[in-house]
Amino acid sequence: MLKKVLIANRGEIAVRIIRACHEMGIQTVAVYSEADREALHTQLATEAICIGPARASDSYLDMTSILSAAVVTGAQAIHPGFGFLSENSIFATMCEEMNIVFIGPKAETIDLMGNKSNARNAMMEANVPVIPGSKGYIKTVEEAEVKAEELGYPVILKAAAGGGGKGMRKISQASELATLFSQAKAEAKAAFGDDRMYLEKIISPARHIEVQILADEFGNVIHLGERDCSLQRNHQKVLEESPSTFISDETRIKMGEIAVRAAKHVDYRNAGTIEFLVDTNEKFYFMEMNTRIQVEHPVTEMATGIDIVKEQLRIASRKPLMIKQQDVKLTGHTIECRINAENPKLGFRPSSGTVEYLYLPSGGNGLRVESAMYGGYAIPPFYDSMIAKIITKGEDREEAIAKMKRALHELVIEGVDTNREFQQAILNDDNFVYGNFDTDYLQTTFLPNWQP
Amino acid sequence: MLKKVLIANRGEIAVRIIRACHEMGIQTVAVYSEADREALHTQLATEAICIGPARASDSYLDMTSILSAAVVTGAQAIHPGFGFLSENSIFATMCEEMNIVFIGPKAETIDLMGNKSNARNAMMEANVPVIPGSKGYIKTVEEAEVKAEELGYPVILKAAAGGGGKGMRKISQASELATLFSQAKAEAKAAFGDDRMYLEKIISPARHIEVQILADEFGNVIHLGERDCSLQRNHQKVLEESPSTFISDETRIKMGEIAVRAAKHVDYRNAGTIEFLVDTNEKFYFMEMNTRIQVEHPVTEMATGIDIVKEQLRIASRKPLMIKQQDVKLTGHTIECRINAENPKLGFRPSSGTVEYLYLPSGGNGLRVESAMYGGYAIPPFYDSMIAKIITKGEDREEAIAKMKRALHELVIEGVDTNREFQQAILNDDNFVYGNFDTDYLQTTFLPNWQP
Repeated sequence: MLKKVLIANRGEIAVRIIRACHEMGIQTVAVYSEADREALHTQLATEAICIGPARASDSYLDMTSILSAAVVTGAQAIHPGFGFLSENSIFATMCEEMNIVFIGPKAETIDLMGNKSNARNAMMEANVPVIPGSKGYIKTVEEAEVKAEELGYPVILKAAAGGGGKGMRKISQASELATLFSQAKAEAKAAFGDDRMYLEKIISPARHIEVQILADEFGNVIHLGERDCSLQRNHQKVLEESPSTFISDETRIKMGEIAVRAAKHVDYRNAGTIEFLVDTNEKFYFMEMNTRIQVEHPVTEMATGIDIVKEQLRIASRKPLMIKQQDVKLTGHTIECRINAENPKLGFRPSSGTVEYLYLPSGGNGLRVESAMYGGYAIPPFYDSMIAKIITKGEDREEAIAKMKRALHELVIEGVDTNREFQQAILNDDNFVYGNFDTDYLQTTFLPNWQP
Repeated sequence: MLKKVLIANRGEIAVRIIRACHEMGIQTVAVYSEADREALHTQLATEAICIGPARASDSYLDMTSILSAAVVTGAQAIHPGFGFLSENSIFATMCEEMNIVFIGPKAETIDLMGNKSNARNAMMEANVPVIPGSKGYIKTVEEAEVKAEELGYPVILKAAAGGGGKGMRKISQASELATLFSQAKAEAKAAFGDDRMYLEKIISPARHIEVQILADEFGNVIHLGERDCSLQRNHQKVLEESPSTFISDETRIKMGEIAVRAAKHVDYRNAGTIEFLVDTNEKFYFMEMNTRIQVEHPVTEMATGIDIVKEQLRIASRKPLMIKQQDVKLTGHTIECRINAENPKLGFRPSSGTVEYLYLPSGGNGLRVESAMYGGYAIPPFYDSMIAKIITKGEDREEAIAKMKRALHELVIEGVDTNREFQQAILNDDNFVYGNFDTDYLQTTFLPNWQP
């Protein structure tokens, strides 16, 4: 087993990884920015090294500083968490070259899945259904017009190197194409230095349902069932659950099999997620693969009892997967609510400041809280606004919802604004309770009718 | 289902019950003493009523005040928790007479199992192995001498009405009998107004292993496996676990079956526990039955996934048990550490005062904390010193221990003394790690060699 791991991240995911390491007898190295001197991950790790100023580009994204910290402390491996350098193939390559284990897939897999057009082609090779669209890059407006006509409007233009919605335009009719095509290209050029574009049909209404994958170095690949992440605001997931209320067992099984096939085709290693869009007829389409641990991984952990982070550490230690597909059993129903420091009354503007008083709910079977907060902790303004994840598991969805309501009712975070009431309103919403929602639901139906 | 339940208790068990009620949509009434005005159970309940001064005899033991509170608030049922009035058959009878559901067994069952000599006789009728001893009461020293000779020294004299070690004397040889017999009788008379005595053989070395029972109003009785509670200090349990490292599967199955038989024989209802002493040959003997929820019930909840408090509430609502014996599966390994406000350096003297700073560990699958503490909470000096229970579940015992060590390492309670380091020392003790201990181990071997 690995003896010492550096965690190239901060916040709750860094704390989550440090705790898993310690439970396995693995020493940890935290890296922290000047703003995170008092952070929980800094305090909990075996060792902690300051890697630069508050701005992420000067610290958590500074590859050289992080690799130096690994060398200085003798860390054998780096866990990148999510965000920051977690899907950066250059960083993964640098780790490989320095004989430091990058806890994730091979650099070339990150690269392949990072280019959305290439990922799409790879999936087509593996007979994984993809969203109908252009086979290669779209070079001219004329080409785009022909393809869009063939697919039928609305369509979406996407940057091959894309991410975070940049270089992406929805096209409702032919007359918009010329203008939006050049806009998207220019934006992609500016954001990624790469203006190659492709075109896809828009699947709407749709559910966002993803499958968790684990793969070892010996070709063993299993899936841990699905998570329904359809409830989103501004393309950010708000509340996730497993199993999905939407798909049949038949679709569920097919989706799992196809996700495993997709991972095998790209010679995947470690934990990853295949995201699908599912239309009203339960036809599903590959959307993208996240080549890292995800925010919502605890949903699957509670549903299956499998500790995904510990499996990542075992896989990175070159151990074969001990879990067989037939041993993976999802029980009950699990829900996760993301708690963000933000003010719903001010358009969800991020909030920062000191947590003057903190009460995190606890007690009972099937309640889990992941957070890097503590009473008196100052939330820095520089990073992601997610400050806690509350996960509940019940015998059924009704009980999971009841537990979540109880937990949110007990939660006290004084000193910063949070989205607690937004989450409570969702839990009390009839459409949510009846499972009647799609990826646009929060944005187009719920929010216009909600008074924060 | 019940609509409103009064919780005749305080501290973490009151909070635990309130949370379960709220998750089931049941309204709650907290009762509180003047010292518990700011207590968490007072804050979390739907309604709260002050029932008297701090001293338990003036509040939590005041049956009239509690019953009045139930009537005034329209509570249909009373959950007594553990301690206080939970095994008081007079209180159970008063509830029955006022048409208030007492969440527990019938008053006559409490009575039967409360008299240790009668309980012993009832168990013999049911062919449940009991500790060899006198069949009825021992009236004279001469009778005691004959019986003790027959059983073989050491033996123990016990008061039939006994509890809390009162009226109990260990007899090592015949010459001690006369003096200790009259001492024990006098003590029993003073404590219980009842000096009837009986005699038992001493089983030593022994493990304390108990079986959790659930029984509905329709004659369905199941058991939820065992808990090993051998680690005790002054007859107080310190650390509990499930499954026991000591017994074979054969013994485990037999013990479960016998516990169910015992419960059926006394027409048991609701949750209860049959406590056994197990000798070195795995022969086990009925010790006593606890006719209430126990402190260590979360161990079984984590092991089985069954919420015992919710089952109590369903049973009290006259619902049949939905769980069949064959569906009860114990997975992994679960450990509970009791955190007490006490100072091991001063002979475990109870500590009270304000919790100036609190950090309860969280995160990861399989960690649960039950506590009524919050940051700034003032622990009153009037009640039991247990302030938190930490429960961890791992795939195996090693992982459960690793998680517990991680949790205790993270725990911060400033302002009062606790037994945290005592628990940590146990977790690091080789004899504990190898499962090499009996009910005397902490007292006779561990503590004399431990430097707080």
